[in-house]
Amino acid sequence: MFSAELKSDTLKGLVNIISTLIDEVKFTITPECMTLKAVDAAHVAMIEMEISKGAFESYSAEDTELGLDLDKVKGVLKLAGAGETIKMEQDDSTGKLVFKVGNITRRMSLIDTTGMNDPKVPQLNLLANIKVPIEELQKGIRAVESISDHITLKAGPEFFELSCEGDTDSVSLKLDASTAKISTDTDVCSMFPPEYLANIIKAIPSGTQVNIELDNDYPVKLVFALAEGEAKVSYLLAPRIESE
Amino acid sequence: MFSAELKSDTLKGLVNIISTLIDEVKFTITPECMTLKAVDAAHVAMIEMEISKGAFESYSAEDTELGLDLDKVKGVLKLAGAGETIKMEQDDSTGKLVFKVGNITRRMSLIDTTGMNDPKVPQLNLLANIKVPIEELQKGIRAVESISDHITLKAGPEFFELSCEGDTDSVSLKLDASTAKISTDTDVCSMFPPEYLANIIKAIPSGTQVNIELDNDYPVKLVFALAEGEAKVSYLLAPRIESE
Amino acid sequence: MFSAELKSDTLKGLVNIISTLIDEVKFTITPECMTLKAVDAAHVAMIEMEISKGAFESYSAEDTELGLDLDKVKGVLKLAGAGETIKMEQDDSTGKLVFKVGNITRRMSLIDTTGMNDPKVPQLNLLANIKVPIEELQKGIRAVESISDHITLKAGPEFFELSCEGDTDSVSLKLDASTAKISTDTDVCSMFPPEYLANIIKAIPSGTQVNIELDNDYPVKLVFALAEGEAKVSYLLAPRIESE
Repeated sequence: MFSAELKSDTLKGLVNIISTLIDEVKFTITPECMTLKAVDAAHVAMIEMEISKGAFESYSAEDTELGLDLDKVKGVLKLAGAGETIKMEQDDSTGKLVFKVGNITRRMSLIDTTGMNDPKVPQLNLLANIKVPIEELQKGIRAVESISDHITLKAGPEFFELSCEGDTDSVSLKLDASTAKISTDTDVCSMFPPEYLANIIKAIPSGTQVNIELDNDYPVKLVFALAEGEAKVSYLLAPRIESE
Repeated sequence: MFSAELKSDTLKGLVNIISTLIDEVKFTITPECMTLKAVDAAHVAMIEMEISKGAFESYSAEDTELGLDLDKVKGVLKLAGAGETIKMEQDDSTGKLVFKVGNITRRMSLIDTTGMNDPKVPQLNLLANIKVPIEELQKGIRAVESISDHITLKAGPEFFELSCEGDTDSVSLKLDASTAKISTDTDVCSMFPPEYLANIIKAIPSGTQVNIELDNDYPVKLVFALAEGEAKVSYLLAPRIESE
Repeated sequence: MFSAELKSDTLKGLVNIISTLIDEVKFTITPECMTLKAVDAAHVAMIEMEISKGAFESYSAEDTELGLDLDKVKGVLKLAGAGETIKMEQDDSTGKLVFKVGNITRRMSLIDTTGMNDPKVPQLNLLANIKVPIEELQKGIRAVESISDHITLKAGPEFFELSCEGDTDSVSLKLDASTAKISTDTDVCSMFPPEYLANIIKAIPSGTQVNIELDNDYPVKLVFALAEGEAKVSYLLAPRIESE
């Protein structure tokens, strides 16, 4: 049993984040929250999301799993105006998920979740912790797109830097303590594939504070909240290690 | 002889509707109005339009015919700002139609209307009559686009429904008497090709009330007014009859 | 040595004009101004630009040359919001040009200007002189796009006309002394390739007065100011001479 209502903007924000990585997803549903753990097909990035009951206008569920094709859910989002409420209800007889938006009813077949195992989330203890407004990261990402090589993230006690070095040209975003809240004793530095970082950073809505956990040649972890704090997201991206 | 002035927005609204079906058209012109009867190349839909003198800022004509390429007229519309007046005048010496927009003069060759016969309009007496705001139909059309199979229109004494059933998914817009003004004694139902219905419904401007005449496995007729009531449109679409 | 700051909108306006003709350019820099002379690859049009010190927020330079890829500069412009200041500084050790926009640093390799000789600017003494608001020319250009044949520019003591004659259709923009300030004793007329004229006219910002110098089967010269009068542009376009 699953039945819930939420604002279309809330659903849109969540779907935008997940679909940077994957289109067919399994949500684990409990009476208190929906959770998701997923890796992309290339096993380069992983996302964990927990959407608590409080993100919904109404929420009523028993323990279950829900396999969704996010492309179809995006189709439903197009039918709803900003601020409009979307109602979701699982039809127990057919097993389909029924969306209602205004006078529209959309019956959606679900994906079989058999064999969709949750990925194992690695326990990491990363040295540096940096808190930045997403707008700064988005400026940095737009800047490196002209170079489109690996992106280097660096941090030291007094700075955080996102940079990209091409054969002849280079670009960097450098933030000091006036913009970023930095916590690290030593300098750390790792390199990442540009498209993954660009996709997730562009999908995070304006006004979000992102917590970056960084280390030397280690994955980076972006932690942030959506849905006015009622949804928590953790995004883990594997580093590119320069072979020399 | 033909000479007229009208607001660019009025002309745009009329051209948008006709060009969902056909690009080269023949207008029959009288001292009182312009009329058009046309079918599309596949003979699936038919449009009848009557634009009365009152839709124009000024209008002066003798009985004549005017063959127009609507693609060229759209080019003229791009030159006019909202609210700007477009002047049309037939040049008696060259036979061309001269458009004037501000300081711009556009001389347009006409299409030879010899052999462009008006289609015969079938007399239909359809059982159900439903009056709906175009915005609701447009929401329904956006919703069925994710399925893109035949669209079913149904009506009964208490409801009007636009729906689309795919292999696994389905979508419907269901209106009751609070949104649609419905007049029918029995239930009626016909199926239609989705692209035709989508094109005409999207082309009708916001704020328009559309009168839908519907029956069982019969054509549907959409009747509506444009140009503040000074232009009347009747759009007839053939049904798809399911062979079993 | 070269170091300067300017508003992103100013730089954008200048780059838009030059890049209608050419992407890789050589600027000649003096302590007082930057100048550019360039022809397009087909040698059909030529541009001269002088950007005086006053167009910049700050400007400090010795005599030098700067070879720039405008595509890369456009990438920098995308990083700056309207009204934001862009800082440019030549790095004497690497020779690269360093752009700074907010917290972003973009190091750009320069183009080797060896062998990039300035084109010789012909001395012309054209009969007619017409001053028009760019908005009128832009309307004329939009109008002729439906015909896309050679564009004819004509002027007489009482009129200026931009027109285009196709096989069956034609279009013209005709201005009188109420819109254009015309100075010529006799009628003049030349024909031009439509794309070149369209590209430059579309690139000139709204609110600009353009001075057109015109003669019989001779190049046309468009002279206008950018950057609130601190940059002067002269654009010369070769005529198409009808062979009969």
